Order: sequence, then structure tokens, then C-alpha cells
Amino acid sequence: MITPYITLVGAGPGAADLITLKGIRAIQQADVILYDALVNEELLDYAKPGCTKIYVGKRAERISTSQDYINKLLVDYALTHGHVVRLKGGDPFVFGRGGEELEYARQFNIPTAVIPGISSSVGLTALQQIPLTHRGVSESFWVITGATTEGNLSKDLYTAVTTTATVVVLMGYAKLAQIVSLYQEHGKGNLPIAVIQNGSLPNERIALGTIDTILQEAERNLVGVPAIIVLGDVVSKHERFEDLKKELHTVAI
Amino acid sequence: MITPYITLVGAGPGAADLITLKGIRAIQQADVILYDALVNEELLDYAKPGCTKIYVGKRAERISTSQDYINKLLVDYALTHGHVVRLKGGDPFVFGRGGEELEYARQFNIPTAVIPGISSSVGLTALQQIPLTHRGVSESFWVITGATTEGNLSKDLYTAVTTTATVVVLMGYAKLAQIVSLYQEHGKGNLPIAVIQNGSLPNERIALGTIDTILQEAERNLVGVPAIIVLGDVVSKHERFEDLKKELHTVAI
Repeated sequence: MITPYITLVGAGPGAADLITLKGIRAIQQADVILYDALVNEELLDYAKPGCTKIYVGKRAERISTSQDYINKLLVDYALTHGHVVRLKGGDPFVFGRGGEELEYARQFNIPTAVIPGISSSVGLTALQQIPLTHRGVSESFWVITGATTEGNLSKDLYTAVTTTATVVVLMGYAKLAQIVSLYQEHGKGNLPIAVIQNGSLPNERIALGTIDTILQEAERNLVGVPAIIVLGDVVSKHERFEDLKKELHTVAI
Repeated sequence: MITPYITLVGAGPGAADLITLKGIRAIQQADVILYDALVNEELLDYAKPGCTKIYVGKRAERISTSQDYINKLLVDYALTHGHVVRLKGGDPFVFGRGGEELEYARQFNIPTAVIPGISSSVGLTALQQIPLTHRGVSESFWVITGATTEGNLSKDLYTAVTTTATVVVLMGYAKLAQIVSLYQEHGKGNLPIAVIQNGSLPNERIALGTIDTILQEAERNLVGVPAIIVLGDVVSKHERFEDLKKELHTVAI
């Protein structure tokens, strides 16, 4: 007797200890695990013997496994094996396409559950001790995709630039220069900004600066993706930001 | 020899298994734990014998312990006891005033660390299977406080209502009627909205509806705070939303 069941589980932003206890328990119970590129593979060690583990992330040599194909795998494995855990980087619903997977599963009347994960937007800023909100500085934070279906900057970013919300752009590193231009056009060249790369992992790096200096800082400190971009006055609360300001001032003299 | 150290730890949105593994390890190592009202007290069971556990949350009989007093406690205990874990509901930096605690601790040169938690904004929506973002529906989510220092609606909400961002209002249940009015003034009476109360706990409740129906739904289904408010077309992805629409349609006929 197979009882099909699908659980979407957020694996967190990178480090294996940033998953929840509830997430670990789901992995321990899984008959099949479908996991993404940004999932820490150490988490697979929690799986029971005989659990089938399938990588469905992007590989260097080919484009991303299609969402349609993943949806079909999820349902096929649930019907033939039982409990499928879909292990996704960050949180399943923060640009994770988890909603599409649930909709597909429901067409087959397969029961579903979702276990949240630490989104990189919240988690990587916290680890760097950058407060997303701060009394008198920011009353909100706005998390926006840097990778829209059409390949443009999200229209939401054109509104976000006019507010005092802390803005976090995920999957937007390739558009950093465009984002810088947008903020400069709005007279925000002095706004603090951070780019965090490989957050929570041993090779984590951060570039800190202002809109006007960040491209240079990123070139000096970073080597690529995955990266998140944090824009807002709260970035000045980072403990190295004061030193950076002094350094910039000295250079200016 | 005392080595002072302060770690802010996010306890997650309510259920004890929604803390991270890293958070549990910090609790296990703590010499002192200062914890808030919305922290699940089961988490204190992870503490080592002899750990001093101090409640610093709001009590019914008096106003909230002041932030200045908590800051002083944090530093005093770090200097006299060593490792202090400041255990906070949700994530320490999502309206958690964690930034202020870090600033104060740094004045005394006490080393600090932050361990992120599942923010109720991300976690409680996930558990209810409401995707914060969804292709073709929402390219972003915006988390806004319902409790500004001045007691008004946040100015950010007046901008948010003009966008297609998914909006999550935390600590805003007392202002639900005001928020409904704002959305109605913008012609958004049909926008889906959810209110989730006691999220992730055994007494969790949800009210689902549209801007025009939610006050009635909340009165019928909810009993008070803590609650989060979720506004946006993604709320229609909740598995009970279709039934609700049919029910509303029947009533309308």
C-alpha cells in the first residue's frame, strides 16, 4: 500500500544547520527526495536507508531541469513510492515555484504540506548583522526578484526606489549595474548597499558600499553568484560600514 | 574567566520545531537566556543545567519590559555570566529591535552574533500553503509593520496598495479595518486577503476572504492576536479559496 504525499521543504540559505528541526524530520521520513542546486547536500545524510535521492537542479552542461518535468517527477514518485520531499533552497515560496508544484500535485488529489525555510533575504542579512528593519530607519522590507520571466528589472523595483523600505533583490547580481543606474537616476548615489555572495557558507563574501561605489567594491571583493543585493540605510548598521566611510573620506581628501 | 558574548537567536513563528538547528545549538551553549513573550517555552528545555532563563516579554499586568532595560540586562549578564542568548520570536531583525540590542552591546566591545529565524511573514504563509510569490501573479513580497512608533498606518502601506506586490502586515490586526478602508479607496475590494492567528500552534486559525468580506470573516473565525495579515492575489492559491468563492457566489444569488 502506497500513500502518496508531497512535502515542500525549505532547506535554508546554504549552511546545513540553517534548516529547521521540522525540515530535518521530513527528510528523515522521506521515501524520495528531489533536491535543487542550492541545497546543501549534507542534508541528504538525514535520509533513511533506501531513500531515493534525485538531483533536479541546474547543471553547468545543460539548462535547468524544466519545471514541467519536476512537477511530473513529483507526482510519479508520490504515486509509486509514497512520501516525496521536495527540498528547495531558501524557502519554497520565495521565488521557489513551490506554488506551481502544489497546483500540479492537487490535480492528482495528492495531499501536500509545506515546511518553511530561512529565506536568503532574511537569513543572510541576519548572519551579516544587517537589520532588515530598524526603528527610525525602516518600517518595512521588500524582497524582489532580479530575474523576471521577461529578463527585465522587475517593475516593483521602480516603485521600491522611491520608498524608504529596505529592498532585497534575489537572483539579481547580473543586473547590479542596471540597479545602480536606477538608484542614481533617483538621486540615491549615497544610499548604502551590500552584496552578499555564497552567504552562510565557508566561502561567503560581502561587498559593502554606497550606490556610487558598489560596482567597484563588488569587483574587488566578489567572484560571482549566488548573491543577494541589499539596499537601504540599514546597511550602514553593518559593523564594518563606519570604517568603510572613513576609508572613502580619506580617499576623497 | 568570563568571556562575554551575545547571540541573538530567532525562535521562529511559534511551533518549537520551526527553530533552526543552529538556533538549538546556541541555546544548548548559553549561560543565560533572555526570552520574549512569543517564544515557545519548550525551547528552553534545550538549555544546559544551570543556565539562567529570564522572561523579558510583555505581561498582562504591566507594559512591556522596556528596551533600555533589556539592553542593560544583555550586557550585564554577558559581562558577569558569559554567553547570553537573546531568544526572540520570528527573526531577530524583522521588527524585533535586534539592531538596537547589537548597537548597545558594541558600545561595550562585546562580540555579537545573529542566528536567523523563520519570520512569521514567510513561515505562517508557507504552512498555510499560500505562496508569497508566484509566476505571473507576484514578483515580490513586502513585509510592513502594523505598529509604527506613532501609532499610524505605515506610510509604506500607502505605496504598497498601489503595487502588485504580496503585502504582509505584522502586528497589524488592530488596524485591520483601517487597512480594509485604504484598499477599498484604491478600488481593491475584490483583492484576496488572509488573516492567520496563532500560526503554527495547535490553536491556529485562518480567516480567508476579499477586502470587502474579511472583517466579517475575521469576526466569524478569529479571536484575537497574535495575527498576520496577507494581502494579494496569491492568497487565492490557498486550497480553500475556491470553495469560499463558490460560497460567496451562492450567497450573492
